[in-house]
Amino acid sequence: MSGLALNRVAKGIIRRALAEDLGTRGDITTRATIPTSQKGSAVIIAKADGIIAGQLWAQWVFRSLDKGVKYEILVPDGTTVSPKVQIATITGPLWAILAGERTALNLMGRAGGIATDTSRYVSAVEGTTAKITETRKTAPGLRYLDKGAVVVGGGVNHRYALYDAFLIKENHIAGVGGISKAIEACRAYSAKFGHFRIIVEARDWDEFLECLACRPDRILLDNMTPDQIRACVQHNAGTVELEASGGITLDNVRDYALAGVDYISIGALTHSVTVLDLSLLVG
Amino acid sequence: MSGLALNRVAKGIIRRALAEDLGTRGDITTRATIPTSQKGSAVIIAKADGIIAGQLWAQWVFRSLDKGVKYEILVPDGTTVSPKVQIATITGPLWAILAGERTALNLMGRAGGIATDTSRYVSAVEGTTAKITETRKTAPGLRYLDKGAVVVGGGVNHRYALYDAFLIKENHIAGVGGISKAIEACRAYSAKFGHFRIIVEARDWDEFLECLACRPDRILLDNMTPDQIRACVQHNAGTVELEASGGITLDNVRDYALAGVDYISIGALTHSVTVLDLSLLVG
Amino acid sequence: MSGLALNRVAKGIIRRALAEDLGTRGDITTRATIPTSQKGSAVIIAKADGIIAGQLWAQWVFRSLDKGVKYEILVPDGTTVSPKVQIATITGPLWAILAGERTALNLMGRAGGIATDTSRYVSAVEGTTAKITETRKTAPGLRYLDKGAVVVGGGVNHRYALYDAFLIKENHIAGVGGISKAIEACRAYSAKFGHFRIIVEARDWDEFLECLACRPDRILLDNMTPDQIRACVQHNAGTVELEASGGITLDNVRDYALAGVDYISIGALTHSVTVLDLSLLVG
Amino acid sequence: MSGLALNRVAKGIIRRALAEDLGTRGDITTRATIPTSQKGSAVIIAKADGIIAGQLWAQWVFRSLDKGVKYEILVPDGTTVSPKVQIATITGPLWAILAGERTALNLMGRAGGIATDTSRYVSAVEGTTAKITETRKTAPGLRYLDKGAVVVGGGVNHRYALYDAFLIKENHIAGVGGISKAIEACRAYSAKFGHFRIIVEARDWDEFLECLACRPDRILLDNMTPDQIRACVQHNAGTVELEASGGITLDNVRDYALAGVDYISIGALTHSVTVLDLSLLVG
Amino acid sequence: MSGLALNRVAKGIIRRALAEDLGTRGDITTRATIPTSQKGSAVIIAKADGIIAGQLWAQWVFRSLDKGVKYEILVPDGTTVSPKVQIATITGPLWAILAGERTALNLMGRAGGIATDTSRYVSAVEGTTAKITETRKTAPGLRYLDKGAVVVGGGVNHRYALYDAFLIKENHIAGVGGISKAIEACRAYSAKFGHFRIIVEARDWDEFLECLACRPDRILLDNMTPDQIRACVQHNAGTVELEASGGITLDNVRDYALAGVDYISIGALTHSVTVLDLSLLVG
Amino acid sequence: MSGLALNRVAKGIIRRALAEDLGTRGDITTRATIPTSQKGSAVIIAKADGIIAGQLWAQWVFRSLDKGVKYEILVPDGTTVSPKVQIATITGPLWAILAGERTALNLMGRAGGIATDTSRYVSAVEGTTAKITETRKTAPGLRYLDKGAVVVGGGVNHRYALYDAFLIKENHIAGVGGISKAIEACRAYSAKFGHFRIIVEARDWDEFLECLACRPDRILLDNMTPDQIRACVQHNAGTVELEASGGITLDNVRDYALAGVDYISIGALTHSVTVLDLSLLVG
Repeated sequence: MSGLALNRVAKGIIRRALAEDLGTRGDITTRATIPTSQKGSAVIIAKADGIIAGQLWAQWVFRSLDKGVKYEILVPDGTTVSPKVQIATITGPLWAILAGERTALNLMGRAGGIATDTSRYVSAVEGTTAKITETRKTAPGLRYLDKGAVVVGGGVNHRYALYDAFLIKENHIAGVGGISKAIEACRAYSAKFGHFRIIVEARDWDEFLECLACRPDRILLDNMTPDQIRACVQHNAGTVELEASGGITLDNVRDYALAGVDYISIGALTHSVTVLDLSLLVG
Repeated sequence: MSGLALNRVAKGIIRRALAEDLGTRGDITTRATIPTSQKGSAVIIAKADGIIAGQLWAQWVFRSLDKGVKYEILVPDGTTVSPKVQIATITGPLWAILAGERTALNLMGRAGGIATDTSRYVSAVEGTTAKITETRKTAPGLRYLDKGAVVVGGGVNHRYALYDAFLIKENHIAGVGGISKAIEACRAYSAKFGHFRIIVEARDWDEFLECLACRPDRILLDNMTPDQIRACVQHNAGTVELEASGGITLDNVRDYALAGVDYISIGALTHSVTVLDLSLLVG
Repeated sequence: MSGLALNRVAKGIIRRALAEDLGTRGDITTRATIPTSQKGSAVIIAKADGIIAGQLWAQWVFRSLDKGVKYEILVPDGTTVSPKVQIATITGPLWAILAGERTALNLMGRAGGIATDTSRYVSAVEGTTAKITETRKTAPGLRYLDKGAVVVGGGVNHRYALYDAFLIKENHIAGVGGISKAIEACRAYSAKFGHFRIIVEARDWDEFLECLACRPDRILLDNMTPDQIRACVQHNAGTVELEASGGITLDNVRDYALAGVDYISIGALTHSVTVLDLSLLVG
Repeated sequence: MSGLALNRVAKGIIRRALAEDLGTRGDITTRATIPTSQKGSAVIIAKADGIIAGQLWAQWVFRSLDKGVKYEILVPDGTTVSPKVQIATITGPLWAILAGERTALNLMGRAGGIATDTSRYVSAVEGTTAKITETRKTAPGLRYLDKGAVVVGGGVNHRYALYDAFLIKENHIAGVGGISKAIEACRAYSAKFGHFRIIVEARDWDEFLECLACRPDRILLDNMTPDQIRACVQHNAGTVELEASGGITLDNVRDYALAGVDYISIGALTHSVTVLDLSLLVG
Repeated sequence: MSGLALNRVAKGIIRRALAEDLGTRGDITTRATIPTSQKGSAVIIAKADGIIAGQLWAQWVFRSLDKGVKYEILVPDGTTVSPKVQIATITGPLWAILAGERTALNLMGRAGGIATDTSRYVSAVEGTTAKITETRKTAPGLRYLDKGAVVVGGGVNHRYALYDAFLIKENHIAGVGGISKAIEACRAYSAKFGHFRIIVEARDWDEFLECLACRPDRILLDNMTPDQIRACVQHNAGTVELEASGGITLDNVRDYALAGVDYISIGALTHSVTVLDLSLLVG
Repeated sequence: MSGLALNRVAKGIIRRALAEDLGTRGDITTRATIPTSQKGSAVIIAKADGIIAGQLWAQWVFRSLDKGVKYEILVPDGTTVSPKVQIATITGPLWAILAGERTALNLMGRAGGIATDTSRYVSAVEGTTAKITETRKTAPGLRYLDKGAVVVGGGVNHRYALYDAFLIKENHIAGVGGISKAIEACRAYSAKFGHFRIIVEARDWDEFLECLACRPDRILLDNMTPDQIRACVQHNAGTVELEASGGITLDNVRDYALAGVDYISIGALTHSVTVLDLSLLVG
C-alpha cells in the first residue's frame, strides 16, 4: 500500500482479476464502439467520506492493460477524502481506461472501505494504549490487499497466516493435554525451525492465569467483558501483551480499550466490508 | 454451487486461498501440537439466521488438504438455517480439519452472506415480476463464488463479465456519437464474432426513448425514481427487458419492483457483503 | 486478428508455441553460427494466392524473443495476396528472426489458410442471405486463432465454446424427454445464471416443427437436403434463425444458401486446414 | 501414442483444450438438461477409412473430467479401420461423456488424420529404402501430438525442435561464411554442450559436394528433381544420410524414393491435416 | 522432512525436478528397453556413513510418476546409517523406478549431505549451550529442502527468508544513520505490519554495546574471535540472544561454542554441500 | 552463460529464487530502513581464487526487481579472478540492490564454484585428449545453471537429461536380455522417433567387448582402473568414443586421461559444489 513499488503478490491478484473480467474476448462493448487509437482521459472521484487506499493497485491495473496509460495519483493512500474530491487522473488509450475501470474500482473500493472502517475504530480508541488489528477472516485470495488496507487505516497487522505465528486455541490445547504443554510444544517447534511468536487464547480467568504462568508473547482474551479484561490487565501488569477479541463493535470498542489491553482484534474489518464509493468519470 | 461437481475455476480459487494461509511451513500451531496420525471430528454450525451456500467449496478445502477427510453435507445450499443448526460434519485427520477451518469458513461465510442478503431482496419483491440481480462489483478474483451465491439466494445472474454481453454506457455512446450508432456497432460486432446480448443504459426519458427505438435486448434505467420507471414500463409495454439500477436499497426495492421492471440490480449484494456467521466445533 | 492489440489468450498460445520449439537450449544452429550482435532483415512473402491473417501474432512472436525486433506489417489482415507479394518486413537481431521464423509462419500459415478457405465459401454464397460460420472442430488449444481467422475471411463466428450458448442435440433431448422440455430446461437455467442463446438441432421436418413451436433463437437443420431446408425456411418465415449443417462443401454450399438459411456451418474450415504457403527470406 | 502412459506434455495439452471449451461455466447445455447422477454409455466409431491414433489422449480427456468414466480401447493406435468400426466404448456419468466428446474427437481426429495420411506415403514408398518423416510445420502447441501420430502412421520422426539437432540452412551458412565453417561452428558448439546431430541443406550439386566433404550426419537435398537426387545418392555411396524435401506429393513421392534417398520429409503431413472422421454415439 | 505429509512447496520442487529430467519424451532408454507392464523392485542403500533425510521427497518422486509404486521407508529421516544399510524398498512398474532414480537420489543425497554435515557440527558443540544454524546461502529454489535437512541433522533454523525476521546489517544502518535508528525503524514497521524478530549484526565491541543498548532479539557477532565473543557473552549476561558467524569451521566451532554464544551459523552447511552417497539397486 | 541473452529457463529459475526469498512481504529490513527513492551503488568482488560464471543471471536478478538497476559486467564469464578483483558494479534503487544481493550471490557463487572446480580437472588433464564432463547429479531444478557452469570452466556437457540420449545401464540390459538386444531396441526407437546418441555402460572387459561389437556412439567404462581402461582404448582403436567414470578425483584424473579415454565424467562437479566466495559491497 506504500513503500516499495507493488510486489508480485499484488500483481498476481490484479492479473487474475483482469482475466476474470476480460476472458477470451476482452471488453466487447468497448471493442465494438471505441477505436483502438482513440485517446481519452478520466478522473476518479470519491462519492463518500473515507480513507483512500490501493492507489498503486489501481495504477497497475491500467498499466498492465496498456503501457501507454498514465495514472497520476492525486492523493496518496491514507488521505481522508469527502465526496467529489479527485483521487487520480488517468490519460491514455480510451479502451484501456474503460476496460480497467471496474477492476480498479473494485480493488480501491474494497481497500478504501477497509481503511475507512479501520480508521473509525482507531479514532474510537484514541488516547488509549489499544491498537486496532484485524483477523484472518479476509476475502479468500485477497489477504494481502485486506491486511495492507488495515494499516493504511491506522490499524496494525495481526499474524499474516497460519505459518508466521503460533495461535494456540482450545483444540490445540486439547490435543496435547493442557495449556502449558501446548506452549512447550510450540517452543520446541520454534527451537528447531526458527522463532515464531506464541499467542494463546484464554476464555476465562483460570485459563488466563494458566497462560500467564507460561509467559507467551501474547494472550488473547476471548469473549470477555471489559471488566473481566481489566482484571487480567491489572494482574498481568505489563508482563505479556494482551489482546481482546470477540463481540467487539464500534459501540463498545472504547470500553475494551479503556480496560487497558494492547490490542483489539475486529473480524468485521475484513470479513464484512462496506466498499468506499468511488466513481470514474471520463472526459 | 449445485449441479455438477466443483469445476476448475472454483478449485483454483480454493488452491490459492489455501496457499495464502499455509505458505511454506503450513499451520505451525497444529504441526507443533497435533500428531499427524490423530483423527478428529467436527461440526460446522450456524451462528445466525441465513441461507447456506458454498458447501461444495468447503468440502473441497478439506479434501484437497487430505483425501482421508470425510465432509458430510447436512443441509444443502439454499437451505434457510437459524443459530445452532448443524451444517456439515467433518471427520478425518485432525490437522487437516484445523488447517482448513478458516479457509472453509471464509468461503462459506461470504457465499452464505451473499445468498442471505439476496434472499432478503427477493422476499421484498415477492409477488411482483421483478427479479433481483447483481453487478460486476464483486471481490476481485471471487466473481465465480459471488455470482453463484446470488443464485443460491434466489437471485438471477447479470452478465458475467465484460466479455459475454454488451453493456453500452455513456462513454461508449460518446465514443461513436449516439445511442443508435453504438447499438449498430455492437450488432455489427455480434454479426461477425457471435451473438451477444445488448444492454443499454438510459438515464432519462429521452435516452430511454432513443434506446427503445433501437430495440436492444434490455434497457438499464439508471438512477431513475420509481415513478419515472413506471412511465418507461408503460411506454415499453413489454417490448424489451427493463432493469432498474442505482440507489436501490432494501427499503425502497419494492417500490421499484411495483413500478413493473423485469430486473433490479443491486451492487451491494456483492460489493458490501456481511458474512454469514458460522463456526466449526471440534470434538 | 484486428482491433485492440493482441490479448493475453493469444500471447499464451504464442508463449507455448515458442517454448515447444526452443526448449531448454534454444535454436542451437543459430546459437552456433550467428553472433548475438549481428543484425539482419527479412521479408515475409506469399507463395500462393490467399487471404492474410495473423499479422499481430507473427509480430508478437518476434517481439517476445527480442524487444529490438521491428516487424512492419505491409498488408493488414484480410488482404488478398498472390505469390511474391510482400507481407511484412522484419529487422533486428538476426538470431531472433531465425529463431522465430517457423513459429510465426506456422501461426500465420494456419490463420491464412482458414481465412482463405472461408473466403471461398463466402464468395460462393455471394448475393444470398447466408452467412458462413465455423464449428467447435478447431485444433485443440488454438480455437482463439481459428475463430479469429474465420472472421478475417469474411465468415461470422458461431458459439465460442460449450459455455456461451446452448446447443441442444439429441442426447440432451433424450436426457430430459423431448425437445420442448430441453428448451424449457435451458430457459430455466438461463433465467438463473444469465442469458444464453438457445440453438436446437433438428434432423427432420417433425423435429423442426417441434423446435419451431418453442421459439428458440436458432434451429440448426442437420443433414437435410437443400429442398428440405427450403421447406423449413418457408414455414419459418423469419421467425427464428435457421442454420444448415452437415455434408456441405464448396460444391453444394450455394444450393444451401439459395434455400434461404441464415447460417451455413462448415466444420472443415477449421478441422481440415490447408495452410497458406508463406516464406521468410533473409537479406 | 503408445508405450508408457500419457506423459505430462500430453496432459498439459488436454488440460488447456478442456479449459478452452469449458471456460468458467462448463457445458451449459448439459448442465441444464442432464442430472449429474445420470449414467450413460457411448461408443466412438469411425466414419471413414483410416488409421486410429490418440486413444490414450481421448481416454485422458474423459478421465480428467470425472474419475468415474471408463474408457475402453477397442482397437489400439495404429489399427486400420473402415466406416462403422467401433473404436472405443465409454461408460460413466453422462455429463462427462457429453462435455468431453468434442475435445476427444478433435484430438483423435487430428491424430488419426495425420497417421492416415502418413500411412499413404509409407505405402507409396514400400519396397524402397526411403522412410517418411515430417517437418516442424506442426500446429503451434500440438507438436507432441502431431509427431506421435506420424510414428503411428508408420513414419519416423525428424528432429523434434530447434533444440535437439542442427539443421544448417543458407542463412546460417551466410552468417559464418560458408558451409564448412558452419559445420565447424556446430561441431564446436557440440563439443562443448553435448552431441547434437548435424543436418545441412544443399540446394544444388555444388552445395551437395561441399556438404559431403564435411561429413555431416545428414544432407537435406532441397527442391531437387529425382534425377538430381539419384546423382547425389550415387556419389554419396552410403557415406552420410540423405533426405529429399520440397515439392513432394503422394503422386511423385515414389520417384524420390526410387532415387535412393534415406528420408523423405513431407511438410503437409502436419501443416495441412485432413481429420479422420469419427463420431461418438450415446445410447 | 517429518510430521505432516509432504506439502505443496516440496511437491512443486519435485515436479520441476522431474520435468527437467524427463522433458517432452521422458526416459527414452527405459521407453526403448522396458515394457510398460514390467514390474520391478529396488532397494536404496547407503554407500557412506551419514544421516538420512528426505525420505518423503523420494517417496513422492516415485508416486508422482506412477501411483502403482510402493515406496517403503526402512529407516526414518534422522537415522544414522553406514555403508550397505538399506534405506528404502521400492516396488512397482520398473519404468517408473528407473525414471525416478536420479531425481530421488539427487534430492535425498543433497538432504542427507546437509543433515550429515550439520550433525558433525552439532556433535562438535555437544555439552555446550550453542545451537547450530544455517544461513540464507541455500541452493536457489531449494531452500525448503535445505532448511529442513538442517533440522534433521540436529540444527535449528535461522530466519527463513527476507520476509520473516529483520536482520539489520551495515547497509541498513548506514541508510538510516545509526544502529538505534535502524532498530527503531524496524520496530515501527513491526508495530504496523505484525511482529517480526529483530536481529542486528555487530562487528566489534562498540557496535555490540550500541546494539545491546537497544535490546534487539538477537545480536549477530560477525567475524569476531572466540575471545571477543566471550567478552560479549559476559557483558550480555543473558539479556539478548547472541549468535556467532563468519569463518567458523568444524575445527574451531567448539571454541566459539565454549565462548558461550546461543547460536552459531554456518553458511557452508547449505552453500557447499557434499552429497550423501546413496545407490539404488534393482532386482 | 554466454551467447544469447538469458533464456526463459534461466528466468524461471531466477523468478522462483526471488519468490522464495521475498515471499509476500518482501525484504522487511530494507522496507523498514531504506526509502524507496534512495539510490545506491555497489560492487561485487571476489573473495577467493576462481572462475567467474553466471554474470547474466545476477544481472537479471536485479533487473527483474527494478528496471532502473544498472548492472555492469566488469569481467565476463570464464575469467579467472583472485581475491579483491571487482566483478561487477551495480547502481540504482538501493532497496533493489539489497533485496537481490543474496539471490544473485547464491547463483553466481554456485556457478562460479562449479566452473572453478571444473577448470581444476581440465587443467589436470591438459595435454591429453581427455575432456572433462559432468553427470546428471545436479541440484534439482538447477541443471541448466549447473551444466552451463561446467562449460564456462572448460568442460564439455554430457547428455542433458533422460530425454536427449540413450544411456544403457545394467537394468536396461537385464530388461531386454543382453547388451546387443538393448542397443537394438534403442536403435529401433531412434529409427522411429528421431536420432538419439547411444551410450552404453560396460563394467568389465567382457562387457566392453560385447558393447564394442554393437558400435554404439560411446562406451562408458564404469569403475575400471586406468590400466583396464588403457586396454579398452587400445582395443577400441578409435572406433567409438570412450568415457571413464566412477571414483575419479583430482588426484587420479590424470592417470585416467593418460589411459587415452575421450571423456572423463565427474559427478562431484555438480553434486558436491564448493561455492565461489563472492561479496557485494555497498557504497
